[in-house]
Amino acid sequence: MNLLKQVNFPKDIKNMEEKTLKQLAKEIRHFLIHSVSKTGGHLASNLGVVELTLALHYCFDLPKDKIVWDVGHQAYVHKLLTGRKKQFCHLRQFHGLSGFPKPHESEYDVFAAGHSSTSISAALGIAKARDLKGEQNHVIAVIGDGAMSGGLAYEALNNAAKENTNLIVILNDNEMSIVNNVGAMSRYLTHLRTDSAYIHAKESFQNFSKKVPLLGNAANFVFEKMRSGAKFLFLPGMLFEEMGFHYIGPIDGHNLEELKEVFQNVKQMRGPLLIHVKTKKGKGYPYAEQESWKYHGVGKFDIKTGKTFSNGKEDYSAVFGKKLVELAEKNENILALTAAMASGTGLLEFQKKFPKRFFDVAIAEQHGVTFSAGLACQGMIPVFAVYSTFLQRAYDQIVHDVCMQKLPVVFAIDRAGIVGADGETHQGVFDIAYLSHIPNMTLVSPKNKWELEEMLTFAVNFKNPIAIRYPRGTASEEFKNHQQPITYGKSEVIQKGTKIALLTEGHMLPFAMQAAEKLKQKNIIPLVVNMRFLKPLDTQILQEAAKCCDYIVTVEDGVRQGGFGTKVLEYYSDCGIYGVKVWNMGFPDKYIEQGTTEELYHEYQLDGEGIYQSIINKMELERNCK
Amino acid sequence: MNLLKQVNFPKDIKNMEEKTLKQLAKEIRHFLIHSVSKTGGHLASNLGVVELTLALHYCFDLPKDKIVWDVGHQAYVHKLLTGRKKQFCHLRQFHGLSGFPKPHESEYDVFAAGHSSTSISAALGIAKARDLKGEQNHVIAVIGDGAMSGGLAYEALNNAAKENTNLIVILNDNEMSIVNNVGAMSRYLTHLRTDSAYIHAKESFQNFSKKVPLLGNAANFVFEKMRSGAKFLFLPGMLFEEMGFHYIGPIDGHNLEELKEVFQNVKQMRGPLLIHVKTKKGKGYPYAEQESWKYHGVGKFDIKTGKTFSNGKEDYSAVFGKKLVELAEKNENILALTAAMASGTGLLEFQKKFPKRFFDVAIAEQHGVTFSAGLACQGMIPVFAVYSTFLQRAYDQIVHDVCMQKLPVVFAIDRAGIVGADGETHQGVFDIAYLSHIPNMTLVSPKNKWELEEMLTFAVNFKNPIAIRYPRGTASEEFKNHQQPITYGKSEVIQKGTKIALLTEGHMLPFAMQAAEKLKQKNIIPLVVNMRFLKPLDTQILQEAAKCCDYIVTVEDGVRQGGFGTKVLEYYSDCGIYGVKVWNMGFPDKYIEQGTTEELYHEYQLDGEGIYQSIINKMELERNCK
Repeated sequence: MNLLKQVNFPKDIKNMEEKTLKQLAKEIRHFLIHSVSKTGGHLASNLGVVELTLALHYCFDLPKDKIVWDVGHQAYVHKLLTGRKKQFCHLRQFHGLSGFPKPHESEYDVFAAGHSSTSISAALGIAKARDLKGEQNHVIAVIGDGAMSGGLAYEALNNAAKENTNLIVILNDNEMSIVNNVGAMSRYLTHLRTDSAYIHAKESFQNFSKKVPLLGNAANFVFEKMRSGAKFLFLPGMLFEEMGFHYIGPIDGHNLEELKEVFQNVKQMRGPLLIHVKTKKGKGYPYAEQESWKYHGVGKFDIKTGKTFSNGKEDYSAVFGKKLVELAEKNENILALTAAMASGTGLLEFQKKFPKRFFDVAIAEQHGVTFSAGLACQGMIPVFAVYSTFLQRAYDQIVHDVCMQKLPVVFAIDRAGIVGADGETHQGVFDIAYLSHIPNMTLVSPKNKWELEEMLTFAVNFKNPIAIRYPRGTASEEFKNHQQPITYGKSEVIQKGTKIALLTEGHMLPFAMQAAEKLKQKNIIPLVVNMRFLKPLDTQILQEAAKCCDYIVTVEDGVRQGGFGTKVLEYYSDCGIYGVKVWNMGFPDKYIEQGTTEELYHEYQLDGEGIYQSIINKMELERNCK
Repeated sequence: MNLLKQVNFPKDIKNMEEKTLKQLAKEIRHFLIHSVSKTGGHLASNLGVVELTLALHYCFDLPKDKIVWDVGHQAYVHKLLTGRKKQFCHLRQFHGLSGFPKPHESEYDVFAAGHSSTSISAALGIAKARDLKGEQNHVIAVIGDGAMSGGLAYEALNNAAKENTNLIVILNDNEMSIVNNVGAMSRYLTHLRTDSAYIHAKESFQNFSKKVPLLGNAANFVFEKMRSGAKFLFLPGMLFEEMGFHYIGPIDGHNLEELKEVFQNVKQMRGPLLIHVKTKKGKGYPYAEQESWKYHGVGKFDIKTGKTFSNGKEDYSAVFGKKLVELAEKNENILALTAAMASGTGLLEFQKKFPKRFFDVAIAEQHGVTFSAGLACQGMIPVFAVYSTFLQRAYDQIVHDVCMQKLPVVFAIDRAGIVGADGETHQGVFDIAYLSHIPNMTLVSPKNKWELEEMLTFAVNFKNPIAIRYPRGTASEEFKNHQQPITYGKSEVIQKGTKIALLTEGHMLPFAMQAAEKLKQKNIIPLVVNMRFLKPLDTQILQEAAKCCDYIVTVEDGVRQGGFGTKVLEYYSDCGIYGVKVWNMGFPDKYIEQGTTEELYHEYQLDGEGIYQSIINKMELERNCK
């Protein structure tokens, strides 16, 4: 690790020889594997872009030139090369280095990311701003082939061609399946297109061809041939060419020499360019090369054996997936959908058992929702399993295509609430707020694994739009004895009591119960209610709580603004019940940073101790005011 | 009109001869022009699809076969042919015929629409449901070339190719500019591709070409030629072919014979097809042909002169556009963006004056927002003018790209609140709810034209994300004397008073003042406050109101759930002010139907009389409860 020790900023690699750069790449891989084995993180994607990132920093001049990293979890090498090496021991930890680009972390990070398919839009904006200011620099978007399926990326390509500015899009293609058929022709074109001699040749040919009308028919046939039988021979080059981009590639993303040559060449070119770079996820760490999905986002692992550490317990995604298979066996109208997250959402078993009833729509949440609406309007029961933070992308489709038509789409919202180490961009804290004001929507949240199963059974039979939100991580097995059947709009009383009512959303119940236990010391036995339905609310229990309790405390894993607690306020106001003291506990009106869920619930006073202390403090304040 | 009289359902045209169909097309145009001249509506797009719709109903068998109309405002002819002719006199009126497809209106409407780019997704869902049920029918999406720029359409095309089901997408291309360069080749291909003899020839050629390796190089050159100089020669055919669709076209969308021939032929074909149909917007009515934009969505007009009726007053869009030009003259960093709504949002003057600082991103709201974020992170001040209902499509981009990074993007939200005749799909009633829970967002709403100007001035200097919401229609000139300067987070007291506080959002102020006038008769002089800032709220005035008034009434042009009134409830709860009687007035938790704005404010008790009566009723109820 002698070389990496000396490298802290881009200037440190500018004069490196090929051989030295290769050695540095090796050391970077070694560093990444060791560092991520201790902290967890996105390993495979970063191992795949070591040479690409080195070549970019070698050829371009950051921060004057700008790189926008799509999704952003592949920016570790970039962070290593831009002054943040020492912070890797706190990667993705509370108050530590972010796993994503963050402009507030470094002037080398021009645009934040986390969600997919945003980079071309952002880079186009940065490029046009440069033009307007009359400045000269290069703007580069680095986008994966998966992110290219997102409609936003297409909208940006479509617009970029029209704007006709200098913009470099690097397509980081690490899915072998997509380019399997790219053959000799494309490789040939790579050389041709970066070779200025060829450009002259092409022009000559064009002039020539204009004079030979007979070519018309020959062109037809050749065109037809390429178009049909050998269609994929040209993919994705022609697609981008038709979108107005100059296509260059594919290029071997692990060949530093080739990368550098192309990047130096394109600096002279004008207009929007797309450079197609082939990389291998997990490159250089055999376990990650073989099972790149496992090492995509990975926890701590043993370098030698490749073994990851797991608590061995079932998570909510697994419980959901298993139950859905069981339900689908009995009802052939049940379908499962995912937006490129079959594994993450627990749908692998479903996919295997019912391949014809399983749909991976790619990273395309908008389409996932409207496609579901289409299926549902014909009597199917589509269950769209999706992370809370990504469903944000389909807000309008939920409003306009599903709920307006009251179509029976089931939204299985995974990773609802705090997700932990991914931080601001991924916290699933907005879904209650953005779903609960949509007419005809029903929203439920389970307290434990069995309730998730019951709610899913309820949902597939509900015949109306319904969303189930459940958190990331181990499925709770607490409160096993509380198994009252799910009834529309009805809550479940966990503990009868007076003075204080604790109304809880889903998996926040145990925290509330911990607070309730502590309140016993103050001679208070609070009413504890698992709300189950966040929309519609159980108005009967709200009426009762208002009668028997002085204080109503709501607890939810989401933003307070517009959240479940707010719905409680709305209800009391709407039906003229005034003077009830409602205290809403949830996340404040800010983006919630990274950290373990324990740290974050603690930080925001949402764990048992925090809830208890907030109640005591509020009561104290009340007493003093009297 | 003898023919049309006899036509009520698709069966009535099934056996018509070519000549008769042509006569019917003529009568339909006559009917549409006369009917829409009296009711207003989407004229130009419907005149453009007369033959297309006739041919579809002639060749396909609805409701067994399914047509999904993208956007949906071009479905008038379809409605005429499916039993709804008599209802056209109440088109787009309160309780009348909708201007969009509505499954609850007719079994011939399979999927509702209003927003753009949803049809391929929905049709794919309908097609897959058919496959799963083992049924046989045709599913057809009819989508305009404008809607093709929406990312959702691309996501659907991308997925449809993979699903490889029988699906017909009709690209209704009425923008001459896009296909200007489509020449002899494409027309030639049209014949070839629908002719089964050609398919064999193609296969033979392919087999032949495999045996001739030398063709490789020739193909390179021909391909290069097509790709660069003559790129648009093949657009959009090749693009769709590369997406996995079989492309047919372009076809003359006003040639019934050609349309029928193609539709009959494609019934035998398998897999996803795209039929490219060229139509002329406004066809058959010279004024609409010449100024199709004017007759896109038109009010009542005089058939002979083509003159539309206008109250001659400036609307909010015009006020906004004019002021933005003025501000942009002084600050060159101010940019204007629209998603294909330059005219509707009042930006034509800006476009003309500052062409380099004006960006029409096409129907692509997601990109519009992230592109703005990119511009803003480099010191630009992008002002994205967009209808409230369409901004719904970019919810995630506002959360993830703009607000998380606190970028100074100005959202000029036009058509906020009730829009009237477009109905459920277009009411801009959700924006307060979906924007106000986003951290770092500021949301304001003006009471009249001058306040809009002041708020815009404030916004372009604000250096943080900010949204201004203002309604459709005539810009109010009431309350001209109330011109206190805009201060961050501060409201404006319009009338001092006690007992009741009327806190109003934007243009609801006059209604509140009417209610205040009526309350005088009951010896109540209420406090009336123009809130200006919906986020953050003016907490000082909320504190004062809680002290001096028994009742706090909030009035807003949006849904109550999660709206501005809810923020007031949240504030009082958060800071421990209990017992305040807050009554939130706004739209209930349902999709709001079509009607004039007057009818709808009246229906939902949001006009002066409604607000007054609600207050009186509530007070009465209160008194009785005591």
